[in-house]
Parts: sequence; structure tokens; C-alpha cells
Amino acid sequence: MTCPKKDKDMEVKEIREHHTPSAGIFFTVDSVLYSKRSPYQKIEVFENESFGKILLLDDLVQTTEKDEFFYHEMLVHPGCVTHPSPKDILVIGGGDGGALKEILRYPVETVCHVEIDSQVIEVGKEHFPWLSTCLEDERVELIISDGLEFLKETGRTFDIIFVDSSEPVGPSAVLHRKEFYMSAKARLNADSAVVAQIGSPLYHLDFIKECSVTFKELFKFVRFYMGPVPSYPGGSWCYVFLSDSVDPLTLNRNPLSDLKYYNQEIHRAAFALPPFIKEYIQ
Amino acid sequence: MTCPKKDKDMEVKEIREHHTPSAGIFFTVDSVLYSKRSPYQKIEVFENESFGKILLLDDLVQTTEKDEFFYHEMLVHPGCVTHPSPKDILVIGGGDGGALKEILRYPVETVCHVEIDSQVIEVGKEHFPWLSTCLEDERVELIISDGLEFLKETGRTFDIIFVDSSEPVGPSAVLHRKEFYMSAKARLNADSAVVAQIGSPLYHLDFIKECSVTFKELFKFVRFYMGPVPSYPGGSWCYVFLSDSVDPLTLNRNPLSDLKYYNQEIHRAAFALPPFIKEYIQ
Repeated sequence: MTCPKKDKDMEVKEIREHHTPSAGIFFTVDSVLYSKRSPYQKIEVFENESFGKILLLDDLVQTTEKDEFFYHEMLVHPGCVTHPSPKDILVIGGGDGGALKEILRYPVETVCHVEIDSQVIEVGKEHFPWLSTCLEDERVELIISDGLEFLKETGRTFDIIFVDSSEPVGPSAVLHRKEFYMSAKARLNADSAVVAQIGSPLYHLDFIKECSVTFKELFKFVRFYMGPVPSYPGGSWCYVFLSDSVDPLTLNRNPLSDLKYYNQEIHRAAFALPPFIKEYIQ
Repeated sequence: MTCPKKDKDMEVKEIREHHTPSAGIFFTVDSVLYSKRSPYQKIEVFENESFGKILLLDDLVQTTEKDEFFYHEMLVHPGCVTHPSPKDILVIGGGDGGALKEILRYPVETVCHVEIDSQVIEVGKEHFPWLSTCLEDERVELIISDGLEFLKETGRTFDIIFVDSSEPVGPSAVLHRKEFYMSAKARLNADSAVVAQIGSPLYHLDFIKECSVTFKELFKFVRFYMGPVPSYPGGSWCYVFLSDSVDPLTLNRNPLSDLKYYNQEIHRAAFALPPFIKEYIQ
């Protein structure tokens, strides 16, 4: 038996992500495709037999080829189906391009993609081919910038703002603060919404509760929703839909028919919250 | 760095359950509470800081103190709420007593608990205190027997039969065969149903598809449903509701109000299936 170990002097045999100090997920590594530090974070891409290419930022799984559809479909489609006709979209974060890929299925006019770390974009273009395809789409404008700085400086407004941040630590921490959501709200058109990933309903419930308080101060409709993501902590993830004018419990049109995880039943189902979450965040 | 290893000559530092040959979950072990082979399987109980006591049968996580409620509430309550007034219940498997615990919240008259492995019962009584409490309930009758043999020999009939099997390998394999479900159907009263756990919607989809074919030959209503279980492969689990007379999409009464995961919204939501499953099992 070899001892699984990550050390620059040894071959990487296994990725381990702790979800709690005493439990987590492991992936065996077929090959290390990328492993460097950017000015913002450690960026790694590993090949795994079951999940395909796995992108990690600062040791946390961001996306895998096999199961990215769970996360990206649930981040994007509830918002796109709720807005009557989204034309101008902003994506903050999500350098792997998975959210872009889903957004571009719709007849949107512009997608402004703001990512702080150009190195994530370069890695994504090389290892997640859908990103290159998205960036070649003439509707997409890539802006390398801090998300909050962009929101404060831009004069543009948007129909949906997707916040596809990494964990609420490191360079994404600011995206979770009140100032950020106030700035996002200021850049919304009528009938518009902010949609964000908000963490694990099992392991980040304190954080979700804190966010809930902030969101309720800022928005009329604060709708948390959930869906599975097998490679994320606990296998379930929580998202939030924020708007002053549209409620995602009322669908404005039928979902696309060629998706893998999301459909109309799943849309309605995702907003059902279990008692242990409802009671905690109320 | 110590090398995590399970060896009888060494202290157990970590439990690892492979969900695929190249990915899985790990738990650090604070202490080994039980580790023996019964005539049927290897039985282990470990203490983990995050999940509390963890029961493994043949190296597969069956239940943990912290997250058992996800699984047991979703196995039991959809069936109990769908039946107009369940009085006589049969549980096959589920030696840890989690299903019993949920069933006994209702004013049922008898619960027949058939478990093949008396050693699982003994371990459960020692380490999962709710089991002792359940077995002391005068409504409960414990029968140590093979589930299929019991179904073939008993003259009794039931309002709901819960199949709380372990994985479809080892001593539970027979529970997943057509003969088993035919025998279960023969022991149902009017307005009755069989409810079973059926595996991971991500990793056991071929098995679920095979079962789907069998179930549709035997029952009028075959309703698969899903819910999260953080300590199970992929973090989501699939269950099936089988009946000739009652449809779980119509609730016959309000759910209990003091549950952690299950409520009326979750009941309706759980039966929403994503396209990748619907298309595969149709």
C-alpha cells in the first residue's frame, strides 16, 4: 500500500477535500494537468477516472467534467426561466465557464463576464473546452476585474446578475458582503434578479443564515433553493434568488427541453426547503 | 504524516468508502466501538467527530447519528402520509432501528420488524439508543428471519411494507429480486404500498432501471423519489413507492410537524425527477 500524499517531491496520488475537520471526499488522481499559484489563489486541474477533469481553487473542488451540469444548470436556469425575457446578463466569477455555457443557450443579447483571476480563464480555456467556445461567442464580453469594483464603476444595467463565486473565503469573500449585494441591486433593470450560489445547506448553515438577514434587508423576494452536486460537500448545494419585482415561484416560460438535471418539476421542487433549514434561517 | 490504513495490527485512523473505483468519502475515526463478523456480514461501528456513531456493514456506511434523519424520514414518512390510516406495518431490514423510530411516531397498531442478522440488532441496541427504545415499544415484534422467507410463510397482511435493505449485494441481494416484490405484494392490504430504498441515482442508475422494469410489471403506481443523504454515495438517494391502489402524489393527511427533513413541500418535491433519470429509466 502506498501512502496517499500531496507533496511537490512526490507524484500526486489523491485529492482530498475536507468538508468538516473529520470528514470529506477523495478522488484518485490519474494525472496532474495543471498546478500553479496565481496572484489570487492556488489553481489545480486533475484528471480522475470517474469525474473527468476536476478544477480546484485553494484545494476546494470548483467543478468536475462529469457533474458540473448539476451546479451550473441550477445556478442559471431558474433565473433565466423566471425573467420574462432576459437580454443583458452579468456573470461575476465562474471562470470555468460553466455558467456562461448554460446562459448562452438562451437568446440573450449580451453576457458580461467579470472574473478577477485571468489565470483561471487561461486554465479553463485549455481544460474545459466549453469555455473557449463561450468566449468566442460574440455576445460575450470578458472583463478581468474585481466583481465589486466592476459593479461600483459600471454604468450598465442587467436583467440577471449571476454570482458564481468560490467559497466565502479568499478572493470571493467580498462577494458575500452587504456592500456587494447593494451594488448588484443598483445595477438591476426592472423585472430583474440576482442569483447566487450560497454554500452547503449542511455545512454552511450559519453563513446562509447571516446572508438571509442581509438579503431580506435588501430585496422583496428572497428565495433559497437547493439541488444536488455530488462532488460538493454533503452532495447538496444551496442557491438564492433575489429580486424586488419577480418571484421564481411563478415561472414565466417553459424550461429548455435538452437539459440533464433541470426541468419544470425540478424548478418547483428546488424551492421546497426542509424544516431544519427553514427554522434555522427564519 | 501518518499513512491512513485499516489493518488489524494497527489502530484504525480512517474509514474510506469508495463510491466509484476512483472516488469516495472518508471519515476520521476517533474510536472503534465495534468490529466483528457475523454469519452474514462484517459489522463495524466507529465514532467520528462530525457524524457521531457510524454503522458500516461490509465496509458500506449504513447510518450515522448526525445524518440518519435524512434517510429514515424519507424512507418512512411519504408512505405513512399517503396511506389513509396505516395500522399494521412490516419493516424488512433496517436493523439499526432508524425506520422503526420514524414509524412509531404514528398511531400504528403493530410493527413487525424482520431482520436477518441478530448481531446487527445487538450492535444497534448498544450503540443507537433509539433502537432499544423502539424494541421496548409493545407495538413492535422483532423477528430474526430472512425477509423473503418470512413473506412466503406468513399469513399476515400489512398496510405498508418498508424495505430498508443494505446495498443490492450480500445478504440483501434477494430483497431486490422480482420474487421478493411479488411476495411482498401478496402480503398487502387494500390501500397499501411497498416502499423501498433503491440506491444512488448517480451510481446505481442501471440497477434502478432494472428494478423499474420489474416494478412496472407488478404495480400500477411506481413512483421513484429522491432526497439528500450526506454520508451516502453522491449525497443523494433514491426510493420507490409501489402500490396498486394509492398514489403518493395525493397526500391523504398533513405530515407530522416535528421532523427535521420532511414536510409537505419536501414530499411533493421529492417526486420530481431530473431529465437524466426520467429518460434513463423510461
